[in-house]
Amino acid sequence: MDYQSLLEEVAAHVAPQIGQGEPAQYIPALASVDPRRFGIALADVDGTVTGVGDWEVPFSVQSISKAFSLALVLEQDGERIWRRVGREPSGNPFNSLVQLEYENGIPRNPFINAGALVVTDRLQTLTGDASTTMLEFLRAESGNPDVAFDQVVAASEAEHGDRNAALAHFMASYGNLDNPVPTVLEHYFWQCSIEMSCRDLALAGGFLARHGLRADGSRLLSPRQAKRINAVMLTCGTYDAAGDFAYRVGLPGKSGVGGGIVAVIPGRCTLCVWSPGLDARGNSVAGLAALDHFTTLTGWSVF
Amino acid sequence: MDYQSLLEEVAAHVAPQIGQGEPAQYIPALASVDPRRFGIALADVDGTVTGVGDWEVPFSVQSISKAFSLALVLEQDGERIWRRVGREPSGNPFNSLVQLEYENGIPRNPFINAGALVVTDRLQTLTGDASTTMLEFLRAESGNPDVAFDQVVAASEAEHGDRNAALAHFMASYGNLDNPVPTVLEHYFWQCSIEMSCRDLALAGGFLARHGLRADGSRLLSPRQAKRINAVMLTCGTYDAAGDFAYRVGLPGKSGVGGGIVAVIPGRCTLCVWSPGLDARGNSVAGLAALDHFTTLTGWSVF
Amino acid sequence: MDYQSLLEEVAAHVAPQIGQGEPAQYIPALASVDPRRFGIALADVDGTVTGVGDWEVPFSVQSISKAFSLALVLEQDGERIWRRVGREPSGNPFNSLVQLEYENGIPRNPFINAGALVVTDRLQTLTGDASTTMLEFLRAESGNPDVAFDQVVAASEAEHGDRNAALAHFMASYGNLDNPVPTVLEHYFWQCSIEMSCRDLALAGGFLARHGLRADGSRLLSPRQAKRINAVMLTCGTYDAAGDFAYRVGLPGKSGVGGGIVAVIPGRCTLCVWSPGLDARGNSVAGLAALDHFTTLTGWSVF
Amino acid sequence: MDYQSLLEEVAAHVAPQIGQGEPAQYIPALASVDPRRFGIALADVDGTVTGVGDWEVPFSVQSISKAFSLALVLEQDGERIWRRVGREPSGNPFNSLVQLEYENGIPRNPFINAGALVVTDRLQTLTGDASTTMLEFLRAESGNPDVAFDQVVAASEAEHGDRNAALAHFMASYGNLDNPVPTVLEHYFWQCSIEMSCRDLALAGGFLARHGLRADGSRLLSPRQAKRINAVMLTCGTYDAAGDFAYRVGLPGKSGVGGGIVAVIPGRCTLCVWSPGLDARGNSVAGLAALDHFTTLTGWSVF
Repeated sequence: MDYQSLLEEVAAHVAPQIGQGEPAQYIPALASVDPRRFGIALADVDGTVTGVGDWEVPFSVQSISKAFSLALVLEQDGERIWRRVGREPSGNPFNSLVQLEYENGIPRNPFINAGALVVTDRLQTLTGDASTTMLEFLRAESGNPDVAFDQVVAASEAEHGDRNAALAHFMASYGNLDNPVPTVLEHYFWQCSIEMSCRDLALAGGFLARHGLRADGSRLLSPRQAKRINAVMLTCGTYDAAGDFAYRVGLPGKSGVGGGIVAVIPGRCTLCVWSPGLDARGNSVAGLAALDHFTTLTGWSVF
Repeated sequence: MDYQSLLEEVAAHVAPQIGQGEPAQYIPALASVDPRRFGIALADVDGTVTGVGDWEVPFSVQSISKAFSLALVLEQDGERIWRRVGREPSGNPFNSLVQLEYENGIPRNPFINAGALVVTDRLQTLTGDASTTMLEFLRAESGNPDVAFDQVVAASEAEHGDRNAALAHFMASYGNLDNPVPTVLEHYFWQCSIEMSCRDLALAGGFLARHGLRADGSRLLSPRQAKRINAVMLTCGTYDAAGDFAYRVGLPGKSGVGGGIVAVIPGRCTLCVWSPGLDARGNSVAGLAALDHFTTLTGWSVF
Repeated sequence: MDYQSLLEEVAAHVAPQIGQGEPAQYIPALASVDPRRFGIALADVDGTVTGVGDWEVPFSVQSISKAFSLALVLEQDGERIWRRVGREPSGNPFNSLVQLEYENGIPRNPFINAGALVVTDRLQTLTGDASTTMLEFLRAESGNPDVAFDQVVAASEAEHGDRNAALAHFMASYGNLDNPVPTVLEHYFWQCSIEMSCRDLALAGGFLARHGLRADGSRLLSPRQAKRINAVMLTCGTYDAAGDFAYRVGLPGKSGVGGGIVAVIPGRCTLCVWSPGLDARGNSVAGLAALDHFTTLTGWSVF
Repeated sequence: MDYQSLLEEVAAHVAPQIGQGEPAQYIPALASVDPRRFGIALADVDGTVTGVGDWEVPFSVQSISKAFSLALVLEQDGERIWRRVGREPSGNPFNSLVQLEYENGIPRNPFINAGALVVTDRLQTLTGDASTTMLEFLRAESGNPDVAFDQVVAASEAEHGDRNAALAHFMASYGNLDNPVPTVLEHYFWQCSIEMSCRDLALAGGFLARHGLRADGSRLLSPRQAKRINAVMLTCGTYDAAGDFAYRVGLPGKSGVGGGIVAVIPGRCTLCVWSPGLDARGNSVAGLAALDHFTTLTGWSVF
């Protein structure tokens, strides 16, 4: 299949939606991104990567990092993490805190902020440096040694981090954090601040399409573990729009408020699309439209 | 592949779990079912059906009927139903009512009771007889003219139906029911009371594996619609265990408190497993274990 | 003290607020009331009654009836009712259903609708005709044999009663109703539909100021029971504004969406004020202002 | 009236309940208090103080301090504080966080922890040293210069303060704190850690019975303000038992998990009772029983 033409057709189709929605407003570094950016990249399981538009422009990965921290913890620690975090969809955002209280400090899944804080806490315990561990992994998988933290974003996240601090202290009150709250928050913010392009992310997420094999052919996860991360992505990966994403796109995917979405076609390829304008649920408007059209054109869906 | 041997291996593997859990207790007709029953059937997309154990014994389909009423409404009415019901996972059972209040009488998805009442209301409006329409459809697809309502179960559901009546009146207070509450409840209870065997259900769900084609080759749903029902089943089909089901089994599935679970391997086959002992979340203990082992043996998972 | 002058001064003071707010809109019979009506009456413990404005015009008592049904149940049944209903404030309206679910079908207090349905259910069991029992009591205490049900309002309540039906069925699902749901609803709606004037209500509530003695000097409740109803009125009597009412007015009071409010000055007198325009929390705007100014002028407050 | 005999009779009556319940367990300094302690003191509005039992033994005031910080803020700042905190009862403890989220970071009242943090934040802004301001006030009113912080308790509160830190950060995320979270928490913990006896507290709360006059006859609050604090105490002063407290005791009261309760009989006297064993809602078992019996003997109740 001619991926280049395919991606160009997708880009042309969604052109009217590029610039729709609004970039994330809670920190200046994200709010000031040009909303008319759009890029899409496809990394084949053989490592070939194709892209169109702004596919080589770095952006803030934000919550997409949650998929990688989960993978790194599952690799090192197996299924233990599920004692401390669930894997059920969380319902609407309103529920985030009441759920945590109702379920005694156990977040519903690793992709809501509370759950990712727990995963980061575990990764910190396992590695001694959760954010650097992730950075090195992403550099290796993307083959791009320039992948880096964005210090302005990380500082800005910390400055506006009261809600995450509230979640972390709340879980700490239930004994569900091992490291000090400030340490967990710091590594969490660093992870969110990593800058990568669509190209980098499509490559870095390749192990999810390769049933757990890393870019160099070594095994990161068992096929079963890779499938399972895909399952968590499909059911919980796009905030309160996971059901809608499954309905329209039909692929495992993880979005971030930087406007990126990584999607996986198991056994075939990993996609990454980016456009900063977000819908009310925090997902990229043009990004969702692009993945929707991509699956319509190709018929590739897990269903 | 030798399906017979495969299903026998599955049955042997889960033998220790048969009888675990407890049959649904809220109505006598379900509570009195022998918890040691176990059956599993596989219907190939070509219509061949294979089974082991109690695979030809009828049981109460209960919530599995929700997948069929959704299909019948989508067939006749297209995407209109989504104005009245969402397609997002619902979080924990505790949320059912608060969610309905928070979201102004719009149920989160068609597979929670509130959502299924809305779908039944719409099917009633479209057909004039929601439960008979479904019964006839199930008879045709299963090729079994003896599929029937269980009048004792239907009467018992009505007698113990205060919680469903509360949901229906609550949605009516938001204007989200077109028919009188007693009419909607009646058809809803009749649908739940239908008795079918694993064989019947595996055949009746064949259209979900055949991308929308009915048993006779005619088209019920477009391929896109069939995929979409599978997406809703995967994200919302097993009560508050959808995430766990996706994680462990990795297939679209719909369970019922009668102990049945229908699962779909798109393009390949439809499975139905039955064992009355339920776990705390209302899914068949041995049924879940059987599907888990089936996907382990075959490697068939949508991920 | 010259009550006539006092009430005239109160009426003059709140004149600018008469007509503010909006009459209850959920049933036509209430929505069509002239919002510029205003009346206030004061019944001394000796039975003398004074009033100004529309103080002899009947209006729909609505939730004010809840205070009388509680008194009648306490009289006949003592403290038993507290096994089935709490006496804690309910927090915001949003909580009504989640609270009921969270606390297993036990309403937080007898003045939210769910709690009043339980009290009515008990009164029905005790008397065989809850609404007629209340009507006769109110006629006797007010000395007005013309106090009557408003059949249009009662029918209209029933027609728009889906939310109350939802609450009743929900409690029935927890076993917290003894009579059939339609019976309980019917008597509940009849009670709400009773029409009385400020004069009638100030007299009928006299027993709360007389430490439990009825108008004819016979004992309805013990002094302790009368105090306790006052305590429930102060903490729970004005929907989600009970704290604000205690803060501003400082008296036990019970309001209704008909625009009436009954307030008690223990040992001294009972007041009833009426004006149909409601604030966002369902209490009469001018009525609240009148009681606020009354306590400012007199210095009478329980605190 | 012979207060000494009265208090002795109360103490004798509740003797069987002394030692029931359990001291607060969340910090060692409270958990280790002897549960068999019991004291009660009554301060007449003229400043005479009477007591029995352990009435001169200092204990940790904990949440009783919330009534004093509210008074100090109202004195200096008038009604402005009500823009940042409500005065409605909060419903059950479960609501604390969901309520805060639902109402955009505005706590329901000044006596739940979230509300007291806001009041402390304001007192800090107004005075530059919220906890020392309170300490000096309490020393002056009680006439006891030895009233002091308990440093062990304050440190222990801070160490186990994750839940309060969560609340503070959460409100900060809504912009409802002016000072840094650690500053607010520090002063809040110091206030809670103050040690006073029943004697000290009955005297210090005298201004609430004296319609706002301090011990030296100078005016702290207007009569209206004093009444209003009493109203908030009655509706919100005993955690999720305010309705029950009003029902049984019928007085404004504020309790703390140190086992103390201050209650006010406006125009007459202020009581303080102490016994460390708490019921499930965090109120002193013997303390509640003592106040209940006191009002039964005297007939003094605001209703």
